[in-house]
Amino acid sequence: MCERCGDSAHGFGADGTSRRDLLLSGAGLMAAPLVAGMAGEAHAQTGQAEQNVNIGPSRVRAFAVTGASRPFSQIEIERRAVGPNDVLLDILYAGICHSDIHTVRGDWGAPNYACVPGHEIVGRVRAVGRNVTKFKVGDIGGVGCMVNSCGTCENCLADREQNCLNGTTFTYDAPDKVSGGHTFGGYSDAIVVTEKFVIRIPPGVDLAAYAPLLCAGVTTFSPMQHWQLEAGQRIGVVGLGGLGHVAVKLAVARKADVIVFTTSPGKLEDAKRLGAREAVLSTDADAMTRLANQFDLLISTVPQAYPMQPFMNLLKLDATLVNVGALGELQGLNGMLLGFGRKSLAGSMIGGIAETQAVIDYCATRNIKADIELITPDQIDRAYERVVNKDVRYRFVIDMTAGREG
Amino acid sequence: MCERCGDSAHGFGADGTSRRDLLLSGAGLMAAPLVAGMAGEAHAQTGQAEQNVNIGPSRVRAFAVTGASRPFSQIEIERRAVGPNDVLLDILYAGICHSDIHTVRGDWGAPNYACVPGHEIVGRVRAVGRNVTKFKVGDIGGVGCMVNSCGTCENCLADREQNCLNGTTFTYDAPDKVSGGHTFGGYSDAIVVTEKFVIRIPPGVDLAAYAPLLCAGVTTFSPMQHWQLEAGQRIGVVGLGGLGHVAVKLAVARKADVIVFTTSPGKLEDAKRLGAREAVLSTDADAMTRLANQFDLLISTVPQAYPMQPFMNLLKLDATLVNVGALGELQGLNGMLLGFGRKSLAGSMIGGIAETQAVIDYCATRNIKADIELITPDQIDRAYERVVNKDVRYRFVIDMTAGREG
Repeated sequence: MCERCGDSAHGFGADGTSRRDLLLSGAGLMAAPLVAGMAGEAHAQTGQAEQNVNIGPSRVRAFAVTGASRPFSQIEIERRAVGPNDVLLDILYAGICHSDIHTVRGDWGAPNYACVPGHEIVGRVRAVGRNVTKFKVGDIGGVGCMVNSCGTCENCLADREQNCLNGTTFTYDAPDKVSGGHTFGGYSDAIVVTEKFVIRIPPGVDLAAYAPLLCAGVTTFSPMQHWQLEAGQRIGVVGLGGLGHVAVKLAVARKADVIVFTTSPGKLEDAKRLGAREAVLSTDADAMTRLANQFDLLISTVPQAYPMQPFMNLLKLDATLVNVGALGELQGLNGMLLGFGRKSLAGSMIGGIAETQAVIDYCATRNIKADIELITPDQIDRAYERVVNKDVRYRFVIDMTAGREG
Repeated sequence: MCERCGDSAHGFGADGTSRRDLLLSGAGLMAAPLVAGMAGEAHAQTGQAEQNVNIGPSRVRAFAVTGASRPFSQIEIERRAVGPNDVLLDILYAGICHSDIHTVRGDWGAPNYACVPGHEIVGRVRAVGRNVTKFKVGDIGGVGCMVNSCGTCENCLADREQNCLNGTTFTYDAPDKVSGGHTFGGYSDAIVVTEKFVIRIPPGVDLAAYAPLLCAGVTTFSPMQHWQLEAGQRIGVVGLGGLGHVAVKLAVARKADVIVFTTSPGKLEDAKRLGAREAVLSTDADAMTRLANQFDLLISTVPQAYPMQPFMNLLKLDATLVNVGALGELQGLNGMLLGFGRKSLAGSMIGGIAETQAVIDYCATRNIKADIELITPDQIDRAYERVVNKDVRYRFVIDMTAGREG
């Protein structure tokens, strides 16, 4: 870590970290085996002591939409001082989620400007507060859709911080209870997050391709857990985009029988490459009829409203379509047809911190990662257009180190 | 039973049945204890043998809508000959379900005219086929929303005849696979139904007030069973009409904490009389806010679409609103809010034959019955208007013996 600017990106190691950083930091819990020969516990503790000195508030580069209908521009934002329980991450990668686009474009109401999106964040730990035990400098941490919650309500205690009764602090465009104002997300050079909300990213993984797992991964993993998708069961994935392609990989890993529904003819072959047994154009009425009443679970990842009943008709009796994509008013659900098969439409939104850690660990042991296209920060506007036009296979990830000083 | 016209309504007994009928019939399984002193098994078998002779097709009085926008008129319909597995019921009572109104008014598409509604039927057995074992002449039988199914598909074998893979035969306005044409319902003097689809009505109950249990009862009982409503859990009943008032009684019997939501100020006190702990005007925004996130289960009985999200907001995390009323396109469901609490909207429709029998038996042992207003067949049109205007407490039942000859 540079003693002048405190930036761990100053380094000469293969992973961008200086050997001195590792020696000082002990390299964290997950990375420890890799550096066992280099840094002993005594060194780690020394490093921990050193790095806790004088980590005050900092001004960092960020990419923001500063007003309605404006393109992204580079601004400077403040990150708070590193508190006793905080982790300061130098952001390496930030995924572009469709929610980012909905937010900055005001689809869910006007955001607070300047709006810095990004809740699929992977970074390297530059500093930790004195009470932090989960990370050491040089570790890789991830931040998903949340950066804080009360920690004491029944939902937090049940590992459902996304449902904190006192108000989850979401990663961007949410009231910031610590610093005031609103939160700024991952399209920036650094972020300070309380330890609990930083996910351990195992060493050796493809860091850029892991960023999307922090939102798209847990969002699709969580319903498979809750609705107990089992080997051999038939699952339909509706929409093959950022979430959908991860859903396919996760469902295939569970040995489920996966069928993809897409409106893009060009994605049919891709779906099979990803492991789906079959891919169907949802405009193919014959196929939709042939597949009626056959699915144990459907996960709909389409990021806008569409007529849902044709998909409800695919479900077996008592089965559930879990909508994780369309977040406005839902369309085209028929009461009689739902009733006839005692079918359910459910919503699901991300997952708790423990579940987010679980999907990262699950993917790490199964060699699952997102299919990404790496871009630089100046390409965000263009990437947004391409996402809206379904022209991405399958997730844009911003290389936040591009053009960064230091 | 009259040997001239075959009508069991010819009688001098307290219940309208002649003592000779009872002697001939053995009085059936449920009624048997009552007549043990009068009719031994030998008599029963003699009666069974006699009544199986020459029960051919019959022409019976019915009340039908014979064309779009027409009022009810008296017509004559044919009931099939009593087959080996059939039961011929002289209909005593027929409940008026809101579905009847939707059907004859073409809300779900034009019905087949003449349309004879009625799927809450209680009648007295006039004859049984030679293979029938569940009923004997003089027994009371009930018919709900179904009169047949294949009996061999996986759904039928799982006691879900309403989901017969080869097509359930619904009680009215459905293709009649036995006789051709379409089925005629309970607004008539008699009906012939295969034994399996006739429900045993225990002796001694208020027959008119049991008719609604065959649809409204099982429709609200079934979701409480499936979603396992337990004592102490909080359930909301949305809409206090024919279904809703039975739902309240059933939920109170389970010792659940019942809160009613209605748009009718005049029903608030009634809800409490029925056993609800609280009744709320759903237009009372303060009450809706106060009760947010508190319900383990909601059963919506409102028979048309309405904005559902305010009610979804009442559910606890992971909980379900079961819609049994609105059978058209559902309205006002917000994807984000469903997702936030992992809430579900489910449909449910009646129940299987075993479950229909179960709710009848459940009610009989707990003294539960519908609150009804008994009308004569000439009052059906007026009753429909009153149902639509929410002016019934809480179910109209047609006394089909009124004006009947013989």
